[in-house]
Amino acid sequence: MTADFIHGINAVKTYLFSVNQSSSCLILKSGKRGPRLREIEEQARKLGCSIKISDKVQMDKVTSNHQGVILQITSRVLKEKSLSNLIDEPGNNKLVLILDGVTDPRNLGACIRSAATLGATAVLAPKSNSAPLTAVAYKSASGGADITPYVQVPNLARSINLLKEAGFWIVGTVLESSTSLSRLDLTGNIVLVLGSEDKGLRRITKDACDFLATIPMVEHALGFNVSVAAGICMYEIQRQRELATGESIL
Amino acid sequence: MTADFIHGINAVKTYLFSVNQSSSCLILKSGKRGPRLREIEEQARKLGCSIKISDKVQMDKVTSNHQGVILQITSRVLKEKSLSNLIDEPGNNKLVLILDGVTDPRNLGACIRSAATLGATAVLAPKSNSAPLTAVAYKSASGGADITPYVQVPNLARSINLLKEAGFWIVGTVLESSTSLSRLDLTGNIVLVLGSEDKGLRRITKDACDFLATIPMVEHALGFNVSVAAGICMYEIQRQRELATGESIL
Repeated sequence: MTADFIHGINAVKTYLFSVNQSSSCLILKSGKRGPRLREIEEQARKLGCSIKISDKVQMDKVTSNHQGVILQITSRVLKEKSLSNLIDEPGNNKLVLILDGVTDPRNLGACIRSAATLGATAVLAPKSNSAPLTAVAYKSASGGADITPYVQVPNLARSINLLKEAGFWIVGTVLESSTSLSRLDLTGNIVLVLGSEDKGLRRITKDACDFLATIPMVEHALGFNVSVAAGICMYEIQRQRELATGESIL
Repeated sequence: MTADFIHGINAVKTYLFSVNQSSSCLILKSGKRGPRLREIEEQARKLGCSIKISDKVQMDKVTSNHQGVILQITSRVLKEKSLSNLIDEPGNNKLVLILDGVTDPRNLGACIRSAATLGATAVLAPKSNSAPLTAVAYKSASGGADITPYVQVPNLARSINLLKEAGFWIVGTVLESSTSLSRLDLTGNIVLVLGSEDKGLRRITKDACDFLATIPMVEHALGFNVSVAAGICMYEIQRQRELATGESIL
């Protein structure tokens, strides 16, 4: 499943019944449709989605496993070439979240949700070894994926360099003892990088960071769920900004 | 499934292969056992679990759906009567997390994990409308459930009163605009209360709180996954304590 299409009866149904907006186009097979497809069609109409009828040959070109239904999502999922546009948007307190190896769609969704809630500009991840924005991830993001774009980039190191050149500070989070997050100055344009839960940051990603920080812990061995860690770090960044500017984001 | 027993081949297998300790007793049916039960038996031996052979009639008394295998967990799952012991333990900076209506086992597990990582004394929840400590929750807690006890109490309001009488401040978290978390003094013995994701705190629970606080948000409508919200609040509590005492918990 790519980030742009959701296919199959269950996935499309989950998506349509968890989303309360119409930014998508439903493609249905021509001919007779069973009750489950009719239920999907009805919900799509309620949401105001555009609906196209297509034939099997055309639909098979998208995926062979569509069960007669494909949903084209037109949420703000960006391609890498749009990354530079994003970076160029004005602002002195921008926050970009990078997830380097988060493969669980629920964790991805929860990260995107927190990123949107806390006003992050974008969430980036490498194309390989990362969860795409599946229906499960989209649902867990609880609307966040329509506010903060999730961008899967082909070469993460290159994207990090782009961000560096644009004046972002790159802050990696690690489990092993290093500077406590709250003792770093996190104002200014910041890229926050989190690794996978089991392996942490890849060596190449860690080397690209300007700073490494850790969340203070009583029980080091346990750590946090990756979406919890991301939430805590982004909260700390926003807390420091509020303190620095004296402006409440409330 | 209760908090004390895990049953069925998949659930027991998941548990035994995700836990690296022996605080449990495996009950296996007598007679011939297939390869999946033998695999479970072998893993239990490796972990040093005690193993009992029982007959179907005895095992059916625990649950009728055991598939020949029941695991008795002897982790630190406490009954309410032990709550007062917990409260009476000495300490001026104790933290108790209350989850009022968290029904998703993965979210429960992630909350317990963060609670253990950040040194909370216990996680409490009402017996009804809360997820029990199932195998999925246990696994998500990633070892945290063996460090910080999860206690399901029959009457949450009574437990909150017990904690109040013992000198705890009760801080409830809400989505609607109220005092920002970081502007509250969160040192001292604190009970942090979170509600369910869809409904928030129940009226009766909200009324029992000494303070209501909110996490500053740019996009209010989205909010956070409940385990992320719990992680952020507990982080803020520990950050303030570190600042107050000058002692790093690192």
